[in-house]
Amino acid sequence: SCPATNPSMLNVHLVPHTHDDVGWLKTVDQYYYGDRNNIQHAGVQYILDSVIDQLQKDPARRFIYVETAFFYRWWRQQSQSTQRIVAQLVNEGRLEFINGGWCMSDEATTHYSAVIDQMTLGLRFLNDTFGECGRPRVAWHIDPFGHAREHASIFAQMGYDGFFFGRLDYQDKARRMKTKEMEMLWRASESLTPPLADLFTGVLPNGYNPPEGFCWDQSCDDAPIRDDPDLEDYNVDEIVQKFLNASYRQAAFYKTNHIIMTMGSDFQYENANLWYKNMDKLIKYVNALQAKGSKVNVLYSTPSCYLQELNLANLTWPLKTDDFFPYADDAHDFWTGYFTSRPALKLYERLSNSRLQTCNQLEVLGGPKSKSGPFGEGDSDTMSKAMGVAQHHDAVSGTEKQHVAYDYARRLATGWAHCEVQKHKLHHSNTLATLGSEAPRVFCENLNISVCPLTESSHKFSMNVYNPLGRTVSWPVRLPVNGSVYSVTDANGRAVDSQVGNVFISLKCELVFQVEAPPLGYSTYIISMLRDEPPASSAKPTVTLSIQNKVHGAAHVETCGNLESFQKNEVMCVFVLFGNYRYNASAGNNKESRQTSGAYIFRPNSSDPFVINKTAETQIVTVSSTVQEVTQRFSPWVSQVVRLYEGHRELELEWTVGPVPVADGLGKEVITRLDTDIKSSDYFYTDSNGREVLERRKDYRPTWELKQTEPVAGNYYPINSRAYIKDDKHQLTVVTDRSQGASSLYNGSLEIMLHRRLLYDDFRGVGEPLSEPGEFSDGLVARGRLLLTLSPPDTAADVHRPLAQGMVLQPLLSFQDGTPSANTKLEFSGLQTSLPPAVHLLTLSQWDKDTALIRLEHQYQAKESKTHSQPVTKLFSTLEVLGASEMSLGANQWKEDMNRLQWNTEKTSKPLPLSAKDPSPWEVTLNPMEIRTLLLRVRQL
Amino acid sequence: SCPATNPSMLNVHLVPHTHDDVGWLKTVDQYYYGDRNNIQHAGVQYILDSVIDQLQKDPARRFIYVETAFFYRWWRQQSQSTQRIVAQLVNEGRLEFINGGWCMSDEATTHYSAVIDQMTLGLRFLNDTFGECGRPRVAWHIDPFGHAREHASIFAQMGYDGFFFGRLDYQDKARRMKTKEMEMLWRASESLTPPLADLFTGVLPNGYNPPEGFCWDQSCDDAPIRDDPDLEDYNVDEIVQKFLNASYRQAAFYKTNHIIMTMGSDFQYENANLWYKNMDKLIKYVNALQAKGSKVNVLYSTPSCYLQELNLANLTWPLKTDDFFPYADDAHDFWTGYFTSRPALKLYERLSNSRLQTCNQLEVLGGPKSKSGPFGEGDSDTMSKAMGVAQHHDAVSGTEKQHVAYDYARRLATGWAHCEVQKHKLHHSNTLATLGSEAPRVFCENLNISVCPLTESSHKFSMNVYNPLGRTVSWPVRLPVNGSVYSVTDANGRAVDSQVGNVFISLKCELVFQVEAPPLGYSTYIISMLRDEPPASSAKPTVTLSIQNKVHGAAHVETCGNLESFQKNEVMCVFVLFGNYRYNASAGNNKESRQTSGAYIFRPNSSDPFVINKTAETQIVTVSSTVQEVTQRFSPWVSQVVRLYEGHRELELEWTVGPVPVADGLGKEVITRLDTDIKSSDYFYTDSNGREVLERRKDYRPTWELKQTEPVAGNYYPINSRAYIKDDKHQLTVVTDRSQGASSLYNGSLEIMLHRRLLYDDFRGVGEPLSEPGEFSDGLVARGRLLLTLSPPDTAADVHRPLAQGMVLQPLLSFQDGTPSANTKLEFSGLQTSLPPAVHLLTLSQWDKDTALIRLEHQYQAKESKTHSQPVTKLFSTLEVLGASEMSLGANQWKEDMNRLQWNTEKTSKPLPLSAKDPSPWEVTLNPMEIRTLLLRVRQL
Repeated sequence: SCPATNPSMLNVHLVPHTHDDVGWLKTVDQYYYGDRNNIQHAGVQYILDSVIDQLQKDPARRFIYVETAFFYRWWRQQSQSTQRIVAQLVNEGRLEFINGGWCMSDEATTHYSAVIDQMTLGLRFLNDTFGECGRPRVAWHIDPFGHAREHASIFAQMGYDGFFFGRLDYQDKARRMKTKEMEMLWRASESLTPPLADLFTGVLPNGYNPPEGFCWDQSCDDAPIRDDPDLEDYNVDEIVQKFLNASYRQAAFYKTNHIIMTMGSDFQYENANLWYKNMDKLIKYVNALQAKGSKVNVLYSTPSCYLQELNLANLTWPLKTDDFFPYADDAHDFWTGYFTSRPALKLYERLSNSRLQTCNQLEVLGGPKSKSGPFGEGDSDTMSKAMGVAQHHDAVSGTEKQHVAYDYARRLATGWAHCEVQKHKLHHSNTLATLGSEAPRVFCENLNISVCPLTESSHKFSMNVYNPLGRTVSWPVRLPVNGSVYSVTDANGRAVDSQVGNVFISLKCELVFQVEAPPLGYSTYIISMLRDEPPASSAKPTVTLSIQNKVHGAAHVETCGNLESFQKNEVMCVFVLFGNYRYNASAGNNKESRQTSGAYIFRPNSSDPFVINKTAETQIVTVSSTVQEVTQRFSPWVSQVVRLYEGHRELELEWTVGPVPVADGLGKEVITRLDTDIKSSDYFYTDSNGREVLERRKDYRPTWELKQTEPVAGNYYPINSRAYIKDDKHQLTVVTDRSQGASSLYNGSLEIMLHRRLLYDDFRGVGEPLSEPGEFSDGLVARGRLLLTLSPPDTAADVHRPLAQGMVLQPLLSFQDGTPSANTKLEFSGLQTSLPPAVHLLTLSQWDKDTALIRLEHQYQAKESKTHSQPVTKLFSTLEVLGASEMSLGANQWKEDMNRLQWNTEKTSKPLPLSAKDPSPWEVTLNPMEIRTLLLRVRQL
Repeated sequence: SCPATNPSMLNVHLVPHTHDDVGWLKTVDQYYYGDRNNIQHAGVQYILDSVIDQLQKDPARRFIYVETAFFYRWWRQQSQSTQRIVAQLVNEGRLEFINGGWCMSDEATTHYSAVIDQMTLGLRFLNDTFGECGRPRVAWHIDPFGHAREHASIFAQMGYDGFFFGRLDYQDKARRMKTKEMEMLWRASESLTPPLADLFTGVLPNGYNPPEGFCWDQSCDDAPIRDDPDLEDYNVDEIVQKFLNASYRQAAFYKTNHIIMTMGSDFQYENANLWYKNMDKLIKYVNALQAKGSKVNVLYSTPSCYLQELNLANLTWPLKTDDFFPYADDAHDFWTGYFTSRPALKLYERLSNSRLQTCNQLEVLGGPKSKSGPFGEGDSDTMSKAMGVAQHHDAVSGTEKQHVAYDYARRLATGWAHCEVQKHKLHHSNTLATLGSEAPRVFCENLNISVCPLTESSHKFSMNVYNPLGRTVSWPVRLPVNGSVYSVTDANGRAVDSQVGNVFISLKCELVFQVEAPPLGYSTYIISMLRDEPPASSAKPTVTLSIQNKVHGAAHVETCGNLESFQKNEVMCVFVLFGNYRYNASAGNNKESRQTSGAYIFRPNSSDPFVINKTAETQIVTVSSTVQEVTQRFSPWVSQVVRLYEGHRELELEWTVGPVPVADGLGKEVITRLDTDIKSSDYFYTDSNGREVLERRKDYRPTWELKQTEPVAGNYYPINSRAYIKDDKHQLTVVTDRSQGASSLYNGSLEIMLHRRLLYDDFRGVGEPLSEPGEFSDGLVARGRLLLTLSPPDTAADVHRPLAQGMVLQPLLSFQDGTPSANTKLEFSGLQTSLPPAVHLLTLSQWDKDTALIRLEHQYQAKESKTHSQPVTKLFSTLEVLGASEMSLGANQWKEDMNRLQWNTEKTSKPLPLSAKDPSPWEVTLNPMEIRTLLLRVRQL
């Protein structure tokens, strides 16, 4: 259904589009309705009304729509006749869905699991509503601030034929324009066999805006085409000439005789008539010149029609294998601050992903008969949509206004509440628990700040631990209590080692013990108070001391306040200096540039960070059989707790930062830095959306000769789950609990940005300084955990891969006062046996009444683990399903129907068969980093 | 076709409307196209596109449109199918034209002749395009800054049933709300027999805006109706309650159970979907409450449907007989500055009216066969539209931005050029002049500054004088020349007395003589140089001297610089002190109010004006048989020339003001003040749009107990052609050449504001200080004339009525070098004889191929002249026409079809028969102040 082009001319594809942020300066629903237009004029309901009206006026007109979160809201409010009209427009290719996820996700701060979910949510709506004609062919990330390789890999696996974006480093863009490398083939995985993760990628010429002078939206001031010769200011000749000039100028940067012009921008087309009326005239008058010998042919088009022409050109395209981070739009304007902006929202989003996976699993395990019940209409849908919205590139990225950040958090909280209902249902369903009256089940959401009224007041209670992973995992649990001695027993009645200790900088005490739960299941612990009095403080000031457990040798702490080293067992010994530092933010008064540090941009006012304090108040708080714990207070607003849990290889570093003081007039960006004697030189490693790892090198880009202009900010990269440095012998890996910014600026050094509080807006539109308010104080306090592991490089993945998955999918704790009734099932597993170590259960969710969607993932990269970087087969031998059909990663197409465009590149290796044949329908093979998406026909037992 | 209402409920008439200024911050064509949206977002083409689209979506939706200048532009660009749709909407009453003139005219600074023309232009387009369904029933002046009685009279005579406006004095409005007198019957003439000039008049509740919180335009930020319960911020209940409250609050100020809400504002409805979508919901949810007992019924309506309900209510309405000037929207915010703002534009507009009338006449006199010819496609159409645009309430009012003022002037200049072609044609047509080659005919547009290359260089030339009046008039003519002695002969070869004199403050000389031309015709004068050398200066400094002519005794000038008195003949003797003063403008730093003086607002910073200079350089420049002339220079920027022409009763005062100096940081408003010993007490008199005269009284309003808060600005009134003061014996009348502001603040004193130059914007939207640039200097120099006459009150009108008509319709001079060829017709009259003195030929213009429109006007008020305030009959006995049909004043309806709504008022006198029967079809009777509009079938002789 693509429009005709003219092979002997320069074809200019006008792509009418709107870019509708799923929340930014306003909340998603404010944007939908056009509320709070005093903040920003934007109303998506009117955009869709208007575009549908205007498309009907002329079959040549086209439009693309991107964000399903908005389209879904609109569609539900339309009459059947309007719905029929829209379906017709979709069938005729006049309205085309592009990208099609619930939102246009951020690429730096999202986790692949949540990205796949939000894409699936949007694509499914389109599939259910419009069928094959509604399936997007093109991924469209015109606004995200840098581009992750894992996103490209995901899009490829979802069956997209191409990918277009607008933002890349200004130096990179300049070079690509010069060398006509604005369009390329992106090989987005080092593990998956090409072309599995190959994606044709195009850089748009003007970001996502129209060429200068051709913006005809109501929000623009460009001159309309005035073609009535009887009125003043007739300008047709002038504007046609200007357009021809713009077309030739653009064509010089691209390889084919087709160019694309994005005719639209943020929330444009609310009054589509302005755009179409003037574009109609533009097309008419420009093409009229062909009769006089002009060689420019302008037409309404779409990205997929443009892409098809590029494919037909059958050229050889350059190959891209790294990613597009960090993004800078000028010499001192590195968009590396948002990697860390709003750390609390970033954590809440990550925990919400864990909840959503749990919720999805419970829905499958609880089965359709638990859909209605005494606990209300809870299901995963609310959380699924809240998470879909939260993946937006101004949501988890932290670049939205404060009131919008609150809205995202509130939506997630509502999702949590619905999922709690789901948890109730699981326990309530006949197969799993009794129907008898039970004490209320509570979920202590504030355990991170040691608040849980039930555990603090009860003398006897049970704790249910749900494990969303496909294998048994053990976690330490810390519960605020008021007694000093407790007995803890597991589901089998066995006593569990526990201690009560003081909470750092608090009058409270916590009961600490370790728990386990079976794969995809729960276990129940019974906790009884034995001594009802607060324990005496065990904290002792110290000068020099060390902590150790059975796995490690020791980690000892000097009076200098820094935990100097850890893991001094025989095998490994690395000197590690932990330090907390701050960068002072640029206030824009620098003579090189007026750029400030803000929600998007990181720009320290000097290259060397300031140490928070050279010494710290240091205490050994707990030395017990469960945990060894040292607390350090560097300042009233920076402290940390270092813990070694018994039986664990990782050192836990719990940081607390805030309220960041700004009374001195300086914004601050707080980092923790690990200085080691690992000979990492300029190299370090960061993950891409929590999955594959990319090598980074200081002051270097693999693709072009970097002119480094910001020695700190220009070396920051996003990390989503981990970063590491290594040499031949040692690899120090840090696993994080949320997305953050990280860098290595010195040999052996790895720094991670924890928190930011700034005094100035950074001129990228949000219009607020990033200064998050706290609940009781003038600034937000953020707390988080880093897990540090030290291993030989060739076995490091064996540790950090499962450690990171355990961080991503955390156990869900729930509590009931008193003793469970006798017939309560204290333990349950949804799997008959654990999954193999290399296999991660990425998705298990109810699809239709009788089907469930499952995604199985090989969680190791090729070559990173001797043990695990191997294909795995025989997965389904233990799962009882009635049938299975494989789908694309986005679950909107049968795998066998996937038929992507093929592209030539300088390094095209002969493509392998797309996937090795599975041995049988019930046994699938997973290669390293492969994800397989299957629709199972299931029957509830 | 009006919507059903509910008699037992409060009916709320929602009137969707847009207010489209025919130029203000942008030019009319910029507004039409939506160009220069950086100045103001406004594009009328899109408004009409969008409204027509939205009206089609639901037959209940309605819209009114007002400004035909815009609608005409749009209509011509529509396809036939769109035109058919629009005609259908008009026929069904869904799109209703309101007001319907070319623009919404200003009421303070316009002349009735131009107002009638611009209304006729717009109404004719509607009539020709849509027939009877396109005829507006309601006049709609929602924005003009005060309301003239003459406008109401004109609307009544045009057949309008009602009139609505938005702006009136805030004290008046408060009182009317309290007494429920927001709606009334306006008896708009003291001369015409009721109900001829009676007009039902309503004050709108919110200016012309929607009630607070209910503006759903794209330009507004009010909350949309969010009625999806699944999204955040559902607000239906809240918004319905708010609307009910607003309705009841408004209903308290009006008499019936119908109220009107204007749902729109400036340039709104560019995206009409926003408005209609939310109003649809409002109507749905508000009326849904009727099922629960609500007594509010809301509906889409129009002003005429609302008016019809008011008429059906059959109530007795209060009577209004004065006008609505001056307009104040707060205690220190009197909109009396614009009466004078942009004096040069105001003059140019007035002269253009004279040109347009001439142009129209020439078109009739030249006849259809001269439509094409060697001089190009000139006709009156261009000037007619330029004048239509110039009547807008931000055009001649002087309240537009500078670049827009230039655009108005440029349009008028283009109109003049087209009319010059018309003049050529008249001379060229076979019946009137030879076809032989002629010297080029030139029009010296710059005679007011003594520039005319032809007269300055030629030794022999002819001057053609066209007289647009229906009777012979004599005018003085002043031509710049370089010789010192000339012979001037008239069309009959008779010598005409002439002198060459110096031009005040210039090296130039002018040839002065008096000319006459026959009614509706021309005469030709031949001017030959007799002595080719510049004359010696005749200027003589003087201390005390006097000037006189045969009509007057003398006017003598004292060294004090002020012309002290004039007209000392036996009959009349009044002491007159001429003075030039300035008010310093308020800069908004006053403790009572921050209001500044600006384009709209006049606010002096003290009540007493400052004298420009107590003494003046005074010279007798010319004492000759043609003219007696005294010049006075008060300062480098204020001077005047006082002239007495032989045979004339009036004293001419030519003032020159500017560049007004503002280096002292003070804006200035310059007045001329006449202080006399006339015992005028607090009374003075000003005309209404150049026609009937209203009595004014200092610090007083006829309708309410005025609390005067601005002793100067609050006593200013607009004058369009004259003002006077009088006592039992004397009346001093000043006839002006343009619209100005005037007042009488002291017994015997009359002041007229001449020029204004200000340093601050006055916060009414124009966003510029009124500081007009001059061509060669930093500020505009303005020059103008006041004609002063002194008469006994009972014969004053006999002088000032013809004097003012002569000022309004000035002769058109054109020049040709050399001697006219022998067969050139040197004199011509379009009338076989002069019209009676009381009768003014207001309009003579070509209508269709074989018809001409003529308007005959009785130019005297009832009782103002013993001689002339009588009915006049027997007009047509000397005109040769084939047939005549009488029309409404707007020429869009046959007089016999006019059937206006009838209204009751406390003073309803039994209406007389509408018009006394004419004696015969060829003899019509004109009563005082009556205008009769006739369509003549004519045949060119």
